[in-house]
Amino acid sequence: CIEALLAEAAEPGAPARPCPCPLPSGDTALSRLVRRLLSARRSLDLCLFSFSCPQLARAVQLLHRRGVRVRLVTDAQYMGLHGSQIGRLRHAGIQVRHDQHSGYMHHKFAIVDRRMLITGSLNWTTQAIQSNRENVLVVEDAEYVKAFQEEFERIWEEYNPANYRFF
Amino acid sequence: CIEALLAEAAEPGAPARPCPCPLPSGDTALSRLVRRLLSARRSLDLCLFSFSCPQLARAVQLLHRRGVRVRLVTDAQYMGLHGSQIGRLRHAGIQVRHDQHSGYMHHKFAIVDRRMLITGSLNWTTQAIQSNRENVLVVEDAEYVKAFQEEFERIWEEYNPANYRFF
Repeated sequence: CIEALLAEAAEPGAPARPCPCPLPSGDTALSRLVRRLLSARRSLDLCLFSFSCPQLARAVQLLHRRGVRVRLVTDAQYMGLHGSQIGRLRHAGIQVRHDQHSGYMHHKFAIVDRRMLITGSLNWTTQAIQSNRENVLVVEDAEYVKAFQEEFERIWEEYNPANYRFF
Repeated sequence: CIEALLAEAAEPGAPARPCPCPLPSGDTALSRLVRRLLSARRSLDLCLFSFSCPQLARAVQLLHRRGVRVRLVTDAQYMGLHGSQIGRLRHAGIQVRHDQHSGYMHHKFAIVDRRMLITGSLNWTTQAIQSNRENVLVVEDAEYVKAFQEEFERIWEEYNPANYRFF
Protein backbone atom coordinates (compact mmCIF):
# COMPACT_ATOMS: atom_id res chain seq x y z
CA CYS A 1 0.00 0.00 0.00
CA ILE A 2 0.96 3.63 -0.18
CA GLU A 3 2.02 3.66 3.50
CA ALA A 4 4.52 0.86 2.87
CA LEU A 5 5.81 2.71 -0.20
CA LEU A 6 6.40 5.88 1.83
CA ALA A 7 7.98 3.94 4.71
CA GLU A 8 10.39 2.25 2.29
CA ALA A 9 11.26 5.63 0.71
CA ALA A 10 11.88 7.17 4.15
CA GLU A 11 14.04 4.27 5.36
CA PRO A 12 15.37 2.37 2.38
CA GLY A 13 16.28 -1.20 3.25
CA ALA A 14 14.30 -1.27 6.50
CA PRO A 15 12.49 -4.59 6.88
CA ALA A 16 9.03 -4.41 5.37
CA ARG A 17 6.23 -4.85 7.87
CA PRO A 18 2.76 -6.01 6.85
CA CYS A 19 0.62 -2.91 6.76
CA PRO A 20 -2.57 -2.78 8.82
CA CYS A 21 -3.98 0.27 7.01
CA PRO A 22 -7.13 0.06 4.90
CA LEU A 23 -5.63 1.72 1.80
CA PRO A 24 -5.68 -0.25 -1.44
CA SER A 25 -2.49 -2.20 -1.98
CA GLY A 26 -0.62 -2.94 -5.16
CA ASP A 27 -0.38 -0.72 -8.19
CA THR A 28 -2.91 2.09 -7.81
CA ALA A 29 -3.08 5.45 -9.57
CA LEU A 30 -1.97 7.07 -6.28
CA SER A 31 1.01 4.75 -5.83
CA ARG A 32 2.08 5.40 -9.43
CA LEU A 33 1.85 9.16 -8.81
CA VAL A 34 3.85 8.87 -5.57
CA ARG A 35 6.53 6.75 -7.30
CA ARG A 36 6.93 9.37 -10.01
CA LEU A 37 7.28 12.13 -7.41
CA LEU A 38 9.79 10.10 -5.40
CA SER A 39 11.94 9.76 -8.52
CA ALA A 40 12.94 13.45 -8.10
CA ARG A 41 16.64 13.94 -7.53
CA ARG A 42 17.16 17.69 -7.87
CA SER A 43 13.92 19.67 -8.02
CA LEU A 44 10.17 19.46 -7.62
CA ASP A 45 8.02 22.39 -8.73
CA LEU A 46 4.41 22.17 -7.60
CA CYS A 47 1.54 24.34 -8.73
CA LEU A 48 -1.53 23.08 -6.88
CA PHE A 49 -4.93 24.66 -6.39
CA SER A 50 -5.78 22.41 -3.46
CA PHE A 51 -3.51 20.11 -1.45
CA SER A 52 -5.02 18.09 1.38
CA CYS A 53 -3.86 14.51 0.71
CA PRO A 54 -1.57 13.52 3.64
CA GLN A 55 0.23 10.77 1.70
CA LEU A 56 1.22 13.16 -1.08
CA ALA A 57 2.32 15.74 1.51
CA ARG A 58 4.53 13.10 3.15
CA ALA A 59 6.11 12.26 -0.20
CA VAL A 60 6.86 15.96 -0.78
CA GLN A 61 8.29 16.35 2.73
CA LEU A 62 10.49 13.30 2.21
CA LEU A 63 11.94 14.81 -0.95
CA HIS A 64 12.59 18.08 0.87
CA ARG A 65 14.44 16.18 3.61
CA ARG A 66 16.50 14.38 0.96
CA GLY A 67 17.72 17.75 -0.34
CA VAL A 68 15.49 18.03 -3.40
CA ARG A 69 14.64 21.70 -4.04
CA VAL A 70 10.86 21.88 -3.57
CA ARG A 71 8.90 25.00 -4.56
CA LEU A 72 5.15 25.12 -4.11
CA VAL A 73 2.62 27.57 -5.55
CA THR A 74 -0.94 27.36 -4.30
CA ASP A 75 -4.25 29.17 -4.07
CA ALA A 76 -4.67 31.76 -1.31
CA GLN A 77 -8.28 30.86 -0.61
CA TYR A 78 -7.89 27.09 -0.60
CA MET A 79 -4.62 26.92 1.36
CA GLY A 80 -6.45 27.81 4.57
CA LEU A 81 -9.23 25.25 4.28
CA HIS A 82 -9.65 22.43 6.78
CA GLY A 83 -7.33 19.56 6.02
CA SER A 84 -4.96 21.61 3.86
CA GLN A 85 -1.38 20.33 4.03
CA ILE A 86 0.16 23.70 3.16
CA GLY A 87 0.76 24.76 6.78
CA ARG A 88 2.52 21.49 7.53
CA LEU A 89 4.75 21.80 4.47
CA ARG A 90 5.64 25.41 5.30
CA HIS A 91 6.38 24.34 8.85
CA ALA A 92 8.74 21.69 7.44
CA GLY A 93 10.68 24.48 5.72
CA ILE A 94 9.31 24.13 2.20
CA GLN A 95 9.01 27.37 0.19
CA VAL A 96 5.38 28.18 -0.53
CA ARG A 97 3.96 31.10 -2.51
CA HIS A 98 0.33 31.95 -3.21
CA ASP A 99 -1.71 34.29 -5.37
CA GLN A 100 -3.18 37.61 -4.28
CA HIS A 101 -6.25 37.57 -6.53
CA SER A 102 -9.93 36.95 -6.14
CA GLY A 103 -9.71 34.40 -8.98
CA TYR A 104 -8.28 30.96 -8.34
CA MET A 105 -4.76 29.71 -8.95
CA HIS A 106 -6.40 26.65 -10.49
CA HIS A 107 -3.43 24.76 -12.00
CA LYS A 108 -2.76 21.22 -10.77
CA PHE A 109 0.65 20.27 -12.02
CA ALA A 110 4.05 19.09 -10.84
CA ILE A 111 7.39 19.16 -12.63
CA VAL A 112 10.01 16.62 -11.55
CA ASP A 113 13.67 17.53 -12.20
CA ARG A 114 12.57 19.98 -14.92
CA ARG A 115 11.99 16.98 -17.22
CA MET A 116 8.73 15.25 -16.25
CA LEU A 117 5.38 17.04 -16.22
CA ILE A 118 2.50 15.62 -14.20
CA THR A 119 -0.75 17.46 -14.94
CA GLY A 120 -4.48 16.96 -15.31
CA SER A 121 -7.78 17.45 -13.54
CA LEU A 122 -6.68 15.99 -10.20
CA ASN A 123 -6.50 18.24 -7.16
CA TRP A 124 -4.24 16.66 -4.55
CA THR A 125 -7.08 15.91 -2.15
CA THR A 126 -8.21 12.66 -0.55
CA GLN A 127 -11.74 13.27 -1.86
CA ALA A 128 -10.51 13.54 -5.44
CA ILE A 129 -8.30 10.46 -5.18
CA GLN A 130 -10.91 8.29 -3.50
CA SER A 131 -14.18 9.44 -5.04
CA ASN A 132 -13.80 11.43 -8.25
CA ARG A 133 -13.41 10.60 -11.90
CA GLU A 134 -10.09 12.28 -12.77
CA ASN A 135 -7.20 12.25 -15.21
CA VAL A 136 -3.47 12.66 -14.69
CA LEU A 137 -1.13 13.00 -17.66
CA VAL A 138 2.57 12.22 -17.28
CA VAL A 139 4.50 13.85 -20.10
CA GLU A 140 8.22 13.95 -20.79
CA ASP A 141 8.10 15.72 -24.19
CA ALA A 142 10.36 18.74 -23.81
CA GLU A 143 7.90 21.02 -25.60
CA TYR A 144 5.13 20.53 -23.03
CA VAL A 145 7.47 20.46 -20.03
CA LYS A 146 9.02 23.75 -21.18
CA ALA A 147 5.65 25.52 -21.46
CA PHE A 148 4.64 24.48 -17.94
CA GLN A 149 8.09 25.21 -16.51
CA GLU A 150 7.89 28.72 -17.96
CA GLU A 151 4.42 29.21 -16.49
CA PHE A 152 5.77 28.00 -13.15
CA GLU A 153 8.68 30.47 -13.18
CA ARG A 154 6.32 33.30 -14.18
CA ILE A 155 3.95 32.52 -11.33
CA TRP A 156 6.79 31.99 -8.85
CA GLU A 157 8.08 35.50 -9.58
CA GLU A 158 4.65 37.08 -9.71
CA TYR A 159 3.72 35.64 -6.29
CA ASN A 160 7.02 36.65 -4.70
CA PRO A 161 6.04 38.23 -1.35
CA ALA A 162 8.44 41.08 -2.18
CA ASN A 163 5.89 42.10 -4.82
CA TYR A 164 2.86 42.13 -2.50
CA ARG A 165 1.02 45.38 -2.46
CA PHE A 166 0.08 46.77 0.92
CA PHE A 167 -2.78 49.18 1.33
CA CYS B 1 -14.12 39.36 -30.36
CA ILE B 2 -15.64 36.01 -29.55
CA GLU B 3 -19.14 37.24 -30.47
CA ALA B 4 -17.97 38.16 -33.97
CA LEU B 5 -16.26 34.78 -34.28
CA LEU B 6 -19.48 32.96 -33.36
CA ALA B 7 -21.57 35.16 -35.66
CA GLU B 8 -19.25 34.41 -38.57
CA ALA B 9 -19.40 30.67 -37.80
CA ALA B 10 -23.20 30.78 -37.65
CA GLU B 11 -23.54 32.75 -40.88
CA PRO B 12 -20.40 32.36 -42.95
CA GLY B 13 -19.94 35.20 -45.36
CA ALA B 14 -22.39 37.55 -43.65
CA PRO B 15 -21.03 41.10 -43.58
CA ALA B 16 -19.01 41.65 -40.40
CA ARG B 17 -20.48 44.26 -38.11
CA PRO B 18 -18.40 46.14 -35.56
CA CYS B 19 -19.11 44.49 -32.23
CA PRO B 20 -20.35 46.60 -29.33
CA CYS B 21 -19.68 43.92 -26.68
CA PRO B 22 -17.07 44.42 -23.96
CA LEU B 23 -15.27 41.10 -24.55
CA PRO B 24 -11.57 41.20 -25.39
CA SER B 25 -10.97 41.24 -29.12
CA GLY B 26 -8.23 39.63 -31.14
CA ASP B 27 -6.47 36.40 -30.36
CA THR B 28 -7.40 35.35 -26.82
CA ALA B 29 -7.15 31.96 -25.14
CA LEU B 30 -10.96 31.71 -25.38
CA SER B 31 -11.04 32.55 -29.09
CA ARG B 32 -8.33 29.96 -29.77
CA LEU B 33 -10.34 27.36 -27.85
CA VAL B 34 -13.53 28.25 -29.77
CA ARG B 35 -11.70 28.07 -33.11
CA ARG B 36 -10.43 24.58 -32.28
CA LEU B 37 -13.93 23.44 -31.34
CA LEU B 38 -15.42 24.95 -34.48
CA SER B 39 -12.95 22.93 -36.57
CA ALA B 40 -15.02 19.79 -35.77
CA ARG B 41 -16.51 18.17 -38.86
CA ARG B 42 -17.83 14.82 -37.62
CA SER B 43 -17.80 14.49 -33.82
CA LEU B 44 -17.29 16.35 -30.58
CA ASP B 45 -17.04 14.38 -27.33
CA LEU B 46 -17.21 16.53 -24.21
CA CYS B 47 -16.46 15.45 -20.66
CA LEU B 48 -16.97 18.53 -18.50
CA PHE B 49 -17.31 18.88 -14.75
CA SER B 50 -18.84 22.34 -15.02
CA PHE B 51 -20.17 24.15 -18.07
CA SER B 52 -21.57 27.66 -17.63
CA CYS B 53 -19.77 29.73 -20.29
CA PRO B 54 -22.45 30.92 -22.77
CA GLN B 55 -20.01 31.50 -25.64
CA LEU B 56 -18.70 27.93 -25.43
CA ALA B 57 -22.28 26.62 -25.23
CA ARG B 58 -23.14 28.56 -28.39
CA ALA B 59 -20.16 27.07 -30.20
CA VAL B 60 -21.28 23.56 -29.19
CA GLN B 61 -24.87 24.27 -30.27
CA LEU B 62 -23.63 25.57 -33.60
CA LEU B 63 -21.72 22.35 -34.23
CA HIS B 64 -24.80 20.31 -33.33
CA ARG B 65 -26.86 22.32 -35.83
CA ARG B 66 -24.21 21.73 -38.47
CA GLY B 67 -24.67 17.98 -38.04
CA VAL B 68 -21.58 17.26 -35.95
CA ARG B 69 -22.33 14.40 -33.52
CA VAL B 70 -22.02 15.98 -30.08
CA ARG B 71 -21.99 13.84 -26.92
CA LEU B 72 -21.65 15.49 -23.51
CA VAL B 73 -20.82 13.89 -20.17
CA THR B 74 -21.11 16.08 -17.08
CA ASP B 75 -21.34 16.08 -13.30
CA ALA B 76 -24.75 15.44 -11.74
CA GLN B 77 -24.24 17.94 -8.92
CA TYR B 78 -22.83 20.77 -11.00
CA MET B 79 -25.18 20.48 -13.96
CA GLY B 80 -28.03 21.95 -11.93
CA LEU B 81 -26.15 24.98 -10.61
CA HIS B 82 -27.18 28.52 -11.50
CA GLY B 83 -25.81 29.52 -14.90
CA SER B 84 -25.21 25.96 -16.07
CA GLN B 85 -25.60 25.61 -19.85
CA ILE B 86 -26.50 21.91 -19.69
CA GLY B 87 -30.27 22.46 -19.72
CA ARG B 88 -30.00 24.70 -22.76
CA LEU B 89 -27.88 22.16 -24.63
CA ARG B 90 -30.25 19.32 -23.78
CA HIS B 91 -33.13 21.49 -24.91
CA ALA B 92 -31.31 21.99 -28.23
CA GLY B 93 -31.30 18.21 -28.70
CA ILE B 94 -27.74 17.45 -27.65
CA GLN B 95 -27.21 14.08 -25.92
CA VAL B 96 -26.11 14.58 -22.31
CA ARG B 97 -25.24 11.93 -19.72
CA HIS B 98 -24.19 12.41 -16.10
CA ASP B 99 -22.78 10.39 -13.24
CA GLN B 100 -24.77 8.86 -10.40
CA HIS B 101 -22.10 9.10 -7.69
CA SER B 102 -21.43 11.27 -4.69
CA GLY B 103 -17.92 11.89 -6.07
CA TYR B 104 -17.41 14.35 -8.90
CA MET B 105 -17.11 13.63 -12.61
CA HIS B 106 -14.16 16.04 -12.56
CA HIS B 107 -12.68 15.66 -16.06
CA LYS B 108 -12.49 18.75 -18.27
CA PHE B 109 -11.71 17.54 -21.75
CA ALA B 110 -13.00 17.65 -25.31
CA ILE B 111 -12.13 15.43 -28.26
CA VAL B 112 -12.62 16.88 -31.74
CA ASP B 113 -13.17 14.40 -34.59
CA ARG B 114 -11.48 11.66 -32.50
CA ARG B 115 -8.13 13.24 -33.37
CA MET B 116 -7.61 16.35 -31.23
CA LEU B 117 -7.66 16.29 -27.44
CA ILE B 118 -8.27 19.52 -25.51
CA THR B 119 -7.68 19.03 -21.78
CA GLY B 120 -6.35 20.75 -18.68
CA SER B 121 -7.44 22.51 -15.51
CA LEU B 122 -10.07 24.73 -17.15
CA ASN B 123 -13.72 24.26 -16.28
CA TRP B 124 -15.87 25.79 -18.99
CA THR B 125 -17.11 28.63 -16.80
CA THR B 126 -16.99 32.38 -17.26
CA GLN B 127 -15.33 32.73 -13.83
CA ALA B 128 -12.51 30.38 -14.84
CA ILE B 129 -11.97 32.07 -18.20
CA GLN B 130 -12.05 35.61 -16.86
CA SER B 131 -10.44 35.31 -13.44
CA ASN B 132 -8.45 32.12 -12.86
CA ARG B 133 -4.96 30.96 -13.62
CA GLU B 134 -5.56 27.88 -15.81
CA ASN B 135 -3.98 25.64 -18.41
CA VAL B 136 -5.39 24.04 -21.55
CA LEU B 137 -3.38 21.48 -23.48
CA VAL B 138 -4.18 20.79 -27.13
CA VAL B 139 -2.73 17.43 -28.12
CA GLU B 140 -2.92 15.54 -31.40
CA ASP B 141 -0.59 12.64 -30.51
CA ALA B 142 -2.62 9.49 -31.14
CA GLU B 143 -1.42 7.86 -27.91
CA TYR B 144 -2.93 10.55 -25.66
CA VAL B 145 -6.06 11.01 -27.76
CA LYS B 146 -6.69 7.25 -27.64
CA ALA B 147 -6.44 7.08 -23.83
CA PHE B 148 -8.96 9.90 -23.41
CA GLN B 149 -11.25 8.58 -26.15
CA GLU B 150 -11.33 5.21 -24.36
CA GLU B 151 -12.10 6.90 -21.05
CA PHE B 152 -14.89 8.83 -22.78
CA GLU B 153 -16.45 5.68 -24.26
CA ARG B 154 -16.20 3.92 -20.86
CA ILE B 155 -17.95 6.80 -19.09
CA TRP B 156 -20.53 7.20 -21.87
CA GLU B 157 -21.56 3.56 -21.41
CA GLU B 158 -21.36 3.64 -17.63
CA TYR B 159 -23.63 6.70 -17.46
CA ASN B 160 -26.14 5.31 -19.94
CA PRO B 161 -29.55 5.97 -18.34
CA ALA B 162 -30.48 2.36 -19.17
CA ASN B 163 -28.01 1.38 -16.43
CA TYR B 164 -29.44 3.65 -13.73
CA ARG B 165 -30.43 1.87 -10.59
CA PHE B 166 -33.80 2.75 -9.11
CA PHE B 167 -34.51 2.30 -5.43
